[in-house]
Amino acid sequence: MITQTKSAPTANLEALESKKVVVLLSGGIDSTVTAYLARRLVGSTSRLYALSFKYNQEHDKELSYAYSTGEALGVEDHLFLEVQIPAGSSLTGQGEIPSKEVKGIPSTWVPQRNSIFLALAFSYAEAVGADSIYIGVNSQDYSGYPDCRPEFITAMSTALNLASKRFVETGKVIGIVTPLQYLHKTGIISTGLELGIDFSNTWSCYRGGLKACGKCPSCRIRLEAFQSLGKTDPLEYEV
Amino acid sequence: MITQTKSAPTANLEALESKKVVVLLSGGIDSTVTAYLARRLVGSTSRLYALSFKYNQEHDKELSYAYSTGEALGVEDHLFLEVQIPAGSSLTGQGEIPSKEVKGIPSTWVPQRNSIFLALAFSYAEAVGADSIYIGVNSQDYSGYPDCRPEFITAMSTALNLASKRFVETGKVIGIVTPLQYLHKTGIISTGLELGIDFSNTWSCYRGGLKACGKCPSCRIRLEAFQSLGKTDPLEYEV
Repeated sequence: MITQTKSAPTANLEALESKKVVVLLSGGIDSTVTAYLARRLVGSTSRLYALSFKYNQEHDKELSYAYSTGEALGVEDHLFLEVQIPAGSSLTGQGEIPSKEVKGIPSTWVPQRNSIFLALAFSYAEAVGADSIYIGVNSQDYSGYPDCRPEFITAMSTALNLASKRFVETGKVIGIVTPLQYLHKTGIISTGLELGIDFSNTWSCYRGGLKACGKCPSCRIRLEAFQSLGKTDPLEYEV
Repeated sequence: MITQTKSAPTANLEALESKKVVVLLSGGIDSTVTAYLARRLVGSTSRLYALSFKYNQEHDKELSYAYSTGEALGVEDHLFLEVQIPAGSSLTGQGEIPSKEVKGIPSTWVPQRNSIFLALAFSYAEAVGADSIYIGVNSQDYSGYPDCRPEFITAMSTALNLASKRFVETGKVIGIVTPLQYLHKTGIISTGLELGIDFSNTWSCYRGGLKACGKCPSCRIRLEAFQSLGKTDPLEYEV
Protein backbone atom coordinates (compact mmCIF):
# COMPACT_ATOMS: atom_id res chain seq x y z
CA MET A 1 0.00 0.00 0.00
CA ILE A 2 1.51 3.30 -1.10
CA THR A 3 0.56 6.27 1.07
CA GLN A 4 -0.23 9.40 -0.87
CA THR A 5 1.82 12.41 0.19
CA LYS A 6 0.37 15.53 -1.38
CA SER A 7 3.30 17.74 -0.48
CA ALA A 8 6.72 17.20 1.02
CA PRO A 9 7.23 18.11 4.70
CA THR A 10 8.48 21.70 4.88
CA ALA A 11 11.53 20.84 6.97
CA ASN A 12 12.86 18.51 4.29
CA LEU A 13 11.94 20.66 1.34
CA GLU A 14 15.44 21.93 0.73
CA ALA A 15 16.92 18.44 0.89
CA LEU A 16 14.25 17.15 -1.47
CA GLU A 17 14.80 20.00 -3.89
CA SER A 18 18.43 19.06 -4.26
CA LYS A 19 17.76 15.36 -4.80
CA LYS A 20 18.71 13.84 -8.09
CA VAL A 21 18.00 10.23 -8.84
CA VAL A 22 19.17 7.95 -11.65
CA VAL A 23 16.65 5.25 -12.61
CA LEU A 24 17.55 2.22 -14.70
CA LEU A 25 14.65 1.93 -17.12
CA SER A 26 14.35 -1.04 -19.46
CA GLY A 27 10.68 -0.61 -20.35
CA GLY A 28 9.62 -3.77 -18.52
CA ILE A 29 7.21 -3.94 -15.59
CA ASP A 30 9.85 -3.94 -12.84
CA SER A 31 11.85 -0.93 -13.98
CA THR A 32 8.69 1.03 -14.84
CA VAL A 33 7.22 0.49 -11.36
CA THR A 34 10.64 1.34 -9.88
CA ALA A 35 10.74 4.62 -11.83
CA TYR A 36 7.27 5.63 -10.64
CA LEU A 37 8.20 4.63 -7.07
CA ALA A 38 11.35 6.72 -7.31
CA ARG A 39 9.27 9.71 -8.42
CA ARG A 40 6.91 9.15 -5.46
CA LEU A 41 9.66 8.58 -2.91
CA VAL A 42 11.90 11.50 -3.78
CA GLY A 43 9.07 13.99 -4.22
CA SER A 44 7.88 16.10 -7.10
CA THR A 45 10.55 18.76 -6.67
CA SER A 46 13.36 16.32 -7.32
CA ARG A 47 14.85 15.43 -10.63
CA LEU A 48 14.85 12.02 -12.27
CA TYR A 49 17.48 10.90 -14.76
CA ALA A 50 16.57 7.82 -16.77
CA LEU A 51 19.17 5.43 -18.17
CA SER A 52 18.34 2.78 -20.77
CA PHE A 53 20.59 0.32 -22.56
CA LYS A 54 20.67 -0.98 -26.06
CA TYR A 55 22.90 -4.00 -25.67
CA ASN A 56 23.21 -6.89 -28.06
CA GLN A 57 19.78 -8.26 -27.17
CA GLU A 58 17.90 -9.96 -30.01
CA HIS A 59 15.30 -7.20 -30.02
CA ASP A 60 15.09 -3.81 -28.36
CA LYS A 61 11.35 -3.39 -28.63
CA GLU A 62 11.05 -2.49 -24.95
CA LEU A 63 13.21 0.62 -25.42
CA SER A 64 10.34 2.52 -27.05
CA TYR A 65 8.29 1.72 -23.94
CA ALA A 66 11.17 2.98 -21.78
CA TYR A 67 11.20 6.20 -23.80
CA SER A 68 7.44 6.72 -23.30
CA THR A 69 7.72 6.15 -19.55
CA GLY A 70 10.56 8.67 -19.36
CA GLU A 71 8.37 11.20 -21.17
CA ALA A 72 5.36 10.44 -18.94
CA LEU A 73 7.50 10.99 -15.83
CA GLY A 74 9.01 14.19 -17.20
CA VAL A 75 12.57 13.07 -16.59
CA GLU A 76 15.28 15.72 -16.59
CA ASP A 77 17.33 13.66 -19.03
CA HIS A 78 17.07 10.22 -20.61
CA LEU A 79 20.37 8.66 -21.63
CA PHE A 80 20.32 5.72 -24.04
CA LEU A 81 23.66 3.91 -23.98
CA GLU A 82 24.78 1.24 -26.41
CA VAL A 83 27.04 -1.49 -25.06
CA GLN A 84 28.05 -4.88 -26.35
CA ILE A 85 27.93 -7.53 -23.62
CA PRO A 86 30.53 -10.20 -24.44
CA ALA A 87 28.96 -13.26 -22.80
CA GLY A 88 26.17 -15.03 -24.61
CA SER A 89 22.58 -15.67 -23.55
CA SER A 90 19.43 -16.81 -25.28
CA LEU A 91 18.46 -13.13 -25.14
CA THR A 92 21.50 -12.25 -27.27
CA GLY A 93 21.03 -14.97 -29.86
CA GLN A 94 22.83 -17.91 -28.21
CA GLY A 95 20.56 -20.89 -27.64
CA GLU A 96 16.81 -21.23 -27.32
CA ILE A 97 14.62 -19.06 -25.14
CA PRO A 98 13.00 -21.61 -22.81
CA SER A 99 9.24 -22.07 -23.03
CA LYS A 100 8.93 -22.71 -19.30
CA GLU A 101 10.75 -21.91 -16.10
CA VAL A 102 13.82 -24.01 -15.36
CA LYS A 103 15.78 -24.87 -12.24
CA GLY A 104 19.08 -23.03 -11.71
CA ILE A 105 20.30 -20.15 -13.84
CA PRO A 106 18.18 -19.97 -17.02
CA SER A 107 19.59 -19.46 -20.54
CA THR A 108 17.97 -16.00 -20.60
CA TRP A 109 20.45 -14.74 -18.02
CA VAL A 110 23.03 -12.35 -19.51
CA PRO A 111 26.29 -12.74 -17.53
CA GLN A 112 27.26 -9.57 -15.66
CA ARG A 113 24.52 -7.51 -17.27
CA ASN A 114 23.55 -5.83 -13.99
CA SER A 115 27.24 -5.30 -13.05
CA ILE A 116 27.84 -3.54 -16.36
CA PHE A 117 24.63 -1.51 -16.10
CA LEU A 118 25.34 -0.48 -12.48
CA ALA A 119 28.93 0.57 -13.24
CA LEU A 120 27.68 2.72 -16.14
CA ALA A 121 24.82 4.06 -13.97
CA PHE A 122 27.33 5.08 -11.30
CA SER A 123 29.35 6.96 -13.88
CA TYR A 124 26.15 8.70 -15.03
CA ALA A 125 25.21 9.47 -11.40
CA GLU A 126 28.64 11.05 -10.89
CA ALA A 127 28.19 13.08 -14.08
CA VAL A 128 24.83 14.57 -13.04
CA GLY A 129 25.53 14.70 -9.30
CA ALA A 130 22.85 12.18 -8.33
CA ASP A 131 22.51 10.85 -4.78
CA SER A 132 21.07 7.46 -5.61
CA ILE A 133 20.43 4.89 -8.30
CA TYR A 134 17.13 3.01 -8.43
CA ILE A 135 17.12 -0.47 -9.98
CA GLY A 136 14.18 -2.87 -10.20
CA VAL A 137 15.87 -6.15 -9.22
CA ASN A 138 13.55 -8.41 -7.28
CA SER A 139 13.05 -11.75 -5.60
CA GLN A 140 11.49 -13.42 -8.64
CA ASP A 141 14.65 -12.91 -10.68
CA TYR A 142 16.65 -13.52 -7.51
CA SER A 143 15.62 -17.19 -7.61
CA GLY A 144 17.66 -17.73 -10.76
CA TYR A 145 19.70 -14.62 -11.57
CA PRO A 146 22.78 -14.23 -9.34
CA ASP A 147 23.12 -10.52 -10.11
CA CYS A 148 19.71 -9.74 -8.64
CA ARG A 149 20.60 -11.03 -5.16
CA PRO A 150 20.79 -8.52 -2.30
CA GLU A 151 24.33 -9.68 -1.42
CA PHE A 152 25.47 -8.78 -4.93
CA ILE A 153 23.83 -5.35 -4.76
CA THR A 154 25.51 -4.66 -1.40
CA ALA A 155 28.95 -5.78 -2.62
CA MET A 156 28.62 -3.81 -5.85
CA SER A 157 27.59 -0.71 -3.92
CA THR A 158 30.72 -1.02 -1.76
CA ALA A 159 32.98 -1.47 -4.80
CA LEU A 160 31.52 1.36 -6.86
CA ASN A 161 31.58 3.82 -3.97
CA LEU A 162 35.24 2.95 -3.32
CA ALA A 163 35.86 3.95 -6.95
CA SER A 164 33.84 7.14 -6.65
CA LYS A 165 35.30 10.64 -6.48
CA ARG A 166 32.34 11.79 -4.38
CA PHE A 167 32.96 9.13 -1.73
CA VAL A 168 36.73 9.65 -1.70
CA GLU A 169 36.45 13.43 -1.40
CA THR A 170 33.34 13.85 0.81
CA GLY A 171 32.60 10.45 2.38
CA LYS A 172 29.07 10.57 0.91
CA VAL A 173 27.93 7.41 -0.79
CA ILE A 174 25.75 7.07 -3.85
CA GLY A 175 23.07 4.61 -2.76
CA ILE A 176 21.79 1.73 -4.85
CA VAL A 177 18.09 1.53 -4.02
CA THR A 178 16.11 -1.66 -4.78
CA PRO A 179 12.50 -1.00 -3.75
CA LEU A 180 11.25 -4.24 -5.36
CA GLN A 181 13.94 -6.51 -3.88
CA TYR A 182 11.61 -8.74 -1.88
CA LEU A 183 8.42 -8.38 -3.92
CA HIS A 184 6.92 -11.01 -6.18
CA LYS A 185 5.36 -10.06 -9.50
CA THR A 186 1.89 -9.76 -7.97
CA GLY A 187 3.20 -7.28 -5.39
CA ILE A 188 5.01 -5.32 -8.08
CA ILE A 189 1.97 -5.10 -10.33
CA SER A 190 -0.41 -4.16 -7.50
CA THR A 191 2.05 -1.45 -6.43
CA GLY A 192 2.10 -0.21 -10.02
CA LEU A 193 -1.70 -0.17 -10.24
CA GLU A 194 -1.86 1.90 -7.04
CA LEU A 195 0.60 4.31 -8.64
CA GLY A 196 -1.70 4.61 -11.66
CA ILE A 197 0.66 2.99 -14.14
CA ASP A 198 -0.79 2.02 -17.51
CA PHE A 199 0.80 -1.38 -18.04
CA SER A 200 -0.04 -1.38 -21.76
CA ASN A 201 3.01 0.90 -21.86
CA THR A 202 5.41 -1.83 -20.65
CA TRP A 203 6.92 -4.75 -22.53
CA SER A 204 8.01 -8.02 -20.88
CA CYS A 205 8.10 -10.57 -23.73
CA TYR A 206 11.50 -12.11 -24.49
CA ARG A 207 10.50 -12.15 -28.14
CA GLY A 208 10.12 -8.99 -30.17
CA GLY A 209 6.91 -9.67 -32.11
CA LEU A 210 4.16 -7.18 -32.95
CA LYS A 211 2.25 -8.55 -29.97
CA ALA A 212 3.64 -10.27 -26.87
CA CYS A 213 3.92 -14.04 -27.36
CA GLY A 214 2.20 -15.03 -24.12
CA LYS A 215 4.31 -18.19 -23.92
CA CYS A 216 7.86 -17.28 -22.83
CA PRO A 217 8.64 -17.41 -19.08
CA SER A 218 8.51 -13.62 -18.84
CA CYS A 219 5.04 -13.41 -20.43
CA ARG A 220 3.79 -16.29 -18.29
CA ILE A 221 4.96 -14.78 -15.00
CA ARG A 222 3.30 -11.51 -15.97
CA LEU A 223 0.01 -13.06 -17.11
CA GLU A 224 -0.23 -15.31 -14.05
CA ALA A 225 0.39 -12.33 -11.75
CA PHE A 226 -2.40 -10.28 -13.35
CA GLN A 227 -4.69 -13.30 -13.18
CA SER A 228 -4.03 -13.98 -9.49
CA LEU A 229 -4.79 -10.31 -8.77
CA GLY A 230 -8.11 -10.68 -10.64
CA LYS A 231 -6.99 -8.02 -13.12
CA THR A 232 -6.65 -8.00 -16.90
CA ASP A 233 -3.27 -7.29 -18.46
CA PRO A 234 -3.95 -4.39 -20.86
CA LEU A 235 -1.13 -5.47 -23.21
CA GLU A 236 -2.08 -7.25 -26.45
CA TYR A 237 -1.04 -10.90 -26.78
CA GLU A 238 -0.81 -13.25 -29.74
CA VAL A 239 -2.78 -15.92 -27.89
CA MET B 1 63.78 -9.80 -11.34
CA ILE B 2 61.76 -12.21 -13.47
CA THR B 3 62.96 -15.80 -13.35
CA GLN B 4 63.02 -17.54 -16.71
CA THR B 5 61.14 -20.85 -16.74
CA LYS B 6 61.96 -22.73 -19.93
CA SER B 7 59.24 -25.32 -19.53
CA ALA B 8 56.35 -25.85 -17.15
CA PRO B 9 56.73 -28.47 -14.41
CA THR B 10 55.29 -31.78 -15.65
CA ALA B 11 52.96 -32.20 -12.68
CA ASN B 12 51.16 -28.96 -13.46
CA LEU B 13 51.09 -29.35 -17.22
CA GLU B 14 47.46 -30.34 -17.40
CA ALA B 15 46.36 -27.48 -15.18
CA LEU B 16 48.45 -25.05 -17.23
CA GLU B 17 47.04 -26.35 -20.49
CA SER B 18 43.52 -25.56 -19.35
CA LYS B 19 44.37 -22.05 -18.16
CA LYS B 20 42.71 -19.20 -19.94
CA VAL B 21 43.47 -15.62 -19.04
CA VAL B 22 41.78 -12.38 -20.00
CA VAL B 23 44.14 -9.39 -20.18
CA LEU B 24 42.94 -5.80 -20.28
CA LEU B 25 45.14 -4.22 -22.92
CA SER B 26 45.04 -0.47 -23.56
CA GLY B 27 48.31 -0.18 -25.44
CA GLY B 28 50.04 1.80 -22.68
CA ILE B 29 53.10 0.69 -20.74
CA ASP B 30 51.26 -0.77 -17.76
CA SER B 31 48.83 -3.00 -19.64
CA THR B 32 51.53 -4.12 -22.09
CA VAL B 33 53.86 -5.20 -19.28
CA THR B 34 50.89 -6.87 -17.57
CA ALA B 35 50.08 -8.82 -20.74
CA TYR B 36 53.66 -10.05 -21.10
CA LEU B 37 53.74 -10.93 -17.39
CA ALA B 38 50.49 -12.86 -17.78
CA ARG B 39 51.99 -14.82 -20.67
CA ARG B 40 55.07 -15.59 -18.53
CA LEU B 41 53.12 -16.47 -15.39
CA VAL B 42 50.54 -18.77 -16.94
CA GLY B 43 52.99 -20.59 -19.24
CA SER B 44 53.27 -20.96 -22.97
CA THR B 45 50.63 -23.68 -23.21
CA SER B 46 47.91 -21.42 -21.86
CA ARG B 47 45.71 -19.15 -23.83
CA LEU B 48 45.51 -15.38 -23.58
CA TYR B 49 42.41 -13.37 -24.46
CA ALA B 50 42.99 -9.67 -24.92
CA LEU B 51 40.29 -7.07 -24.30
CA SER B 52 40.60 -3.46 -25.43
CA PHE B 53 38.15 -0.60 -25.21
CA LYS B 54 37.26 2.19 -27.53
CA TYR B 55 35.41 4.52 -25.22
CA ASN B 56 34.68 8.17 -25.77
CA GLN B 57 38.31 9.15 -25.23
CA GLU B 58 39.51 12.12 -27.29
CA HIS B 59 41.83 9.88 -29.27
CA ASP B 60 42.23 6.13 -29.54
CA LYS B 61 45.73 6.13 -30.93
CA GLU B 62 46.91 3.61 -28.33
CA LEU B 63 44.50 0.97 -29.65
CA SER B 64 46.73 0.27 -32.66
CA TYR B 65 49.56 -0.38 -30.18
CA ALA B 66 47.24 -2.70 -28.23
CA TYR B 67 46.49 -4.56 -31.44
CA SER B 68 50.21 -5.01 -32.24
CA THR B 69 50.93 -6.31 -28.74
CA GLY B 70 48.08 -8.79 -29.05
CA GLU B 71 49.56 -10.02 -32.34
CA ALA B 72 53.07 -10.22 -30.87
CA LEU B 73 51.77 -12.30 -27.96
CA GLY B 74 49.75 -14.57 -30.24
CA VAL B 75 46.54 -14.10 -28.30
CA GLU B 76 43.74 -16.59 -28.85
CA ASP B 77 41.29 -13.77 -29.41
CA HIS B 78 41.37 -9.99 -29.18
CA LEU B 79 38.03 -8.35 -28.45
CA PHE B 80 37.67 -4.62 -29.09
CA LEU B 81 34.57 -3.27 -27.34
CA GLU B 82 33.05 0.14 -27.83
CA VAL B 83 31.41 1.76 -24.82
CA GLN B 84 30.33 5.30 -24.03
CA ILE B 85 31.31 6.33 -20.52
CA PRO B 86 28.76 8.89 -19.27
CA ALA B 87 30.91 10.90 -16.85
CA GLY B 88 33.26 13.50 -18.23
CA SER B 89 37.02 13.78 -17.97
CA SER B 90 39.69 15.79 -19.68
CA LEU B 91 40.41 12.55 -21.56
CA THR B 92 36.89 12.60 -22.99
CA GLY B 93 36.85 16.24 -24.00
CA GLN B 94 35.74 17.93 -20.76
CA GLY B 95 38.29 20.41 -19.45
CA GLU B 96 41.99 20.80 -19.97
CA ILE B 97 44.52 17.99 -19.72
CA PRO B 98 46.86 19.24 -16.97
CA SER B 99 50.46 19.97 -17.88
CA LYS B 100 51.74 18.80 -14.51
CA GLU B 101 50.76 16.46 -11.72
CA VAL B 102 48.13 17.74 -9.31
CA LYS B 103 47.07 16.89 -5.78
CA GLY B 104 43.91 14.83 -5.39
CA ILE B 105 41.99 13.25 -8.24
CA PRO B 106 43.21 14.74 -11.53
CA SER B 107 40.94 15.86 -14.40
CA THR B 108 42.25 12.96 -16.49
CA TRP B 109 40.44 10.49 -14.28
CA VAL B 110 37.41 8.93 -16.02
CA PRO B 111 34.78 8.12 -13.33
CA GLN B 112 34.10 4.38 -13.00
CA ARG B 113 36.22 3.51 -16.05
CA ASN B 114 37.85 0.54 -14.33
CA SER B 115 34.53 -0.60 -12.85
CA ILE B 116 32.97 -0.60 -16.31
CA PHE B 117 36.01 -2.31 -17.87
CA LEU B 118 36.18 -4.99 -15.15
CA ALA B 119 32.45 -5.77 -15.36
CA LEU B 120 32.78 -6.21 -19.14
CA ALA B 121 36.00 -8.23 -18.68
CA PHE B 122 34.19 -10.55 -16.27
CA SER B 123 31.46 -11.11 -18.82
CA TYR B 124 34.14 -11.88 -21.43
CA ALA B 125 35.90 -14.23 -18.99
CA GLU B 126 32.63 -16.06 -18.41
CA ALA B 127 32.11 -16.31 -22.20
CA VAL B 128 35.53 -17.89 -22.89
CA GLY B 129 35.79 -19.83 -19.61
CA ALA B 130 38.79 -17.89 -18.29
CA ASP B 131 40.12 -18.39 -14.76
CA SER B 132 41.52 -14.94 -14.21
CA ILE B 133 41.61 -11.37 -15.41
CA TYR B 134 44.88 -9.42 -15.48
CA ILE B 135 44.74 -5.65 -15.13
CA GLY B 136 47.68 -3.24 -14.93
CA VAL B 137 46.51 -0.95 -12.13
CA ASN B 138 49.39 0.29 -10.00
CA SER B 139 50.48 2.47 -7.15
CA GLN B 140 51.36 5.46 -9.31
CA ASP B 141 47.79 5.78 -10.48
CA TYR B 142 46.68 4.68 -7.03
CA SER B 143 47.89 8.00 -5.61
CA GLY B 144 45.14 9.84 -7.49
CA TYR B 145 42.77 7.36 -9.10
CA PRO B 146 40.33 5.77 -6.61
CA ASP B 147 39.57 2.85 -8.93
CA CYS B 148 43.20 1.70 -8.95
CA ARG B 149 43.31 1.12 -5.18
CA PRO B 150 43.68 -2.45 -3.90
CA GLU B 151 40.57 -2.09 -1.71
CA PHE B 152 38.52 -1.28 -4.80
CA ILE B 153 39.91 -4.27 -6.70
CA THR B 154 39.10 -6.58 -3.77
CA ALA B 155 35.55 -5.23 -3.39
CA MET B 156 34.93 -5.41 -7.14
CA SER B 157 36.20 -8.98 -7.24
CA THR B 158 33.74 -9.93 -4.48
CA ALA B 159 30.82 -8.24 -6.23
CA LEU B 160 31.53 -9.66 -9.70
CA ASN B 161 32.03 -13.20 -8.41
CA LEU B 162 28.73 -12.97 -6.52
CA ALA B 163 27.14 -12.18 -9.90
CA SER B 164 28.96 -15.00 -11.68
CA LYS B 165 27.36 -18.24 -12.82
CA ARG B 166 30.68 -20.07 -12.34
CA PHE B 167 30.93 -19.04 -8.69
CA VAL B 168 27.27 -19.74 -7.94
CA GLU B 169 27.37 -23.18 -9.55
CA THR B 170 30.91 -24.40 -8.69
CA GLY B 171 32.25 -22.12 -5.96
CA LYS B 172 35.27 -21.29 -8.15
CA VAL B 173 36.13 -17.63 -8.37
CA ILE B 174 37.48 -15.74 -11.35
CA GLY B 175 40.51 -13.92 -9.95
CA ILE B 176 41.40 -10.31 -10.66
CA VAL B 177 45.20 -10.29 -10.82
CA THR B 178 47.10 -7.01 -10.45
CA PRO B 179 50.82 -7.84 -10.82
CA LEU B 180 51.83 -4.15 -10.97
CA GLN B 181 49.75 -3.03 -7.95
CA TYR B 182 52.67 -1.88 -5.80
CA LEU B 183 55.19 -1.02 -8.51
CA HIS B 184 56.24 2.44 -9.53
CA LYS B 185 56.84 3.29 -13.17
CA THR B 186 60.56 2.51 -12.90
CA GLY B 187 59.79 -0.97 -11.59
CA ILE B 188 57.21 -1.53 -14.32
CA ILE B 189 59.58 -0.45 -17.09
CA SER B 190 62.52 -2.47 -15.77
CA THR B 191 60.23 -5.52 -15.53
CA GLY B 192 59.20 -4.91 -19.12
CA LEU B 193 62.80 -4.57 -20.28
CA GLU B 194 63.64 -7.91 -18.63
CA LEU B 195 60.68 -9.42 -20.49
CA GLY B 196 62.12 -8.11 -23.77
CA ILE B 197 59.32 -5.65 -24.48
CA ASP B 198 59.94 -3.11 -27.24
CA PHE B 199 58.50 0.03 -25.65
CA SER B 200 58.35 1.84 -28.99
CA ASN B 201 55.24 -0.30 -29.39
CA THR B 202 53.43 1.36 -26.47
CA TRP B 203 51.66 4.72 -26.26
CA SER B 204 51.24 6.73 -23.05
CA CYS B 205 50.60 10.30 -24.21
CA TYR B 206 47.23 11.79 -23.25
CA ARG B 207 47.27 13.63 -26.56
CA GLY B 208 46.90 11.84 -29.87
CA GLY B 209 49.54 13.58 -32.00
CA LEU B 210 51.81 11.97 -34.59
CA LYS B 211 54.52 11.87 -31.93
CA ALA B 212 54.08 11.82 -28.14
CA CYS B 213 53.93 15.35 -26.69
CA GLY B 214 56.51 14.78 -23.93
CA LYS B 215 54.71 17.32 -21.74
CA CYS B 216 51.51 15.80 -20.35
CA PRO B 217 51.72 14.07 -16.92
CA SER B 218 51.65 10.65 -18.53
CA CYS B 219 54.59 11.43 -20.88
CA ARG B 220 56.53 13.02 -18.02
CA ILE B 221 56.14 10.06 -15.66
CA ARG B 222 57.28 7.77 -18.47
CA LEU B 223 60.26 9.87 -19.53
CA GLU B 224 61.42 10.41 -15.94
CA ALA B 225 61.22 6.67 -15.26
CA PHE B 226 63.35 5.80 -18.29
CA GLN B 227 65.81 8.52 -17.29
CA SER B 228 66.17 7.32 -13.72
CA LEU B 229 66.83 3.80 -15.04
CA GLY B 230 69.59 5.21 -17.28
CA LYS B 231 67.68 4.00 -20.35
CA THR B 232 66.42 5.75 -23.45
CA ASP B 233 62.70 5.67 -24.23
CA PRO B 234 62.56 4.31 -27.82
CA LEU B 235 59.31 6.19 -28.55
CA GLU B 236 59.52 9.34 -30.68
CA TYR B 237 58.67 12.64 -28.96
CA GLU B 238 57.84 16.09 -30.27
CA VAL B 239 60.39 17.67 -27.93
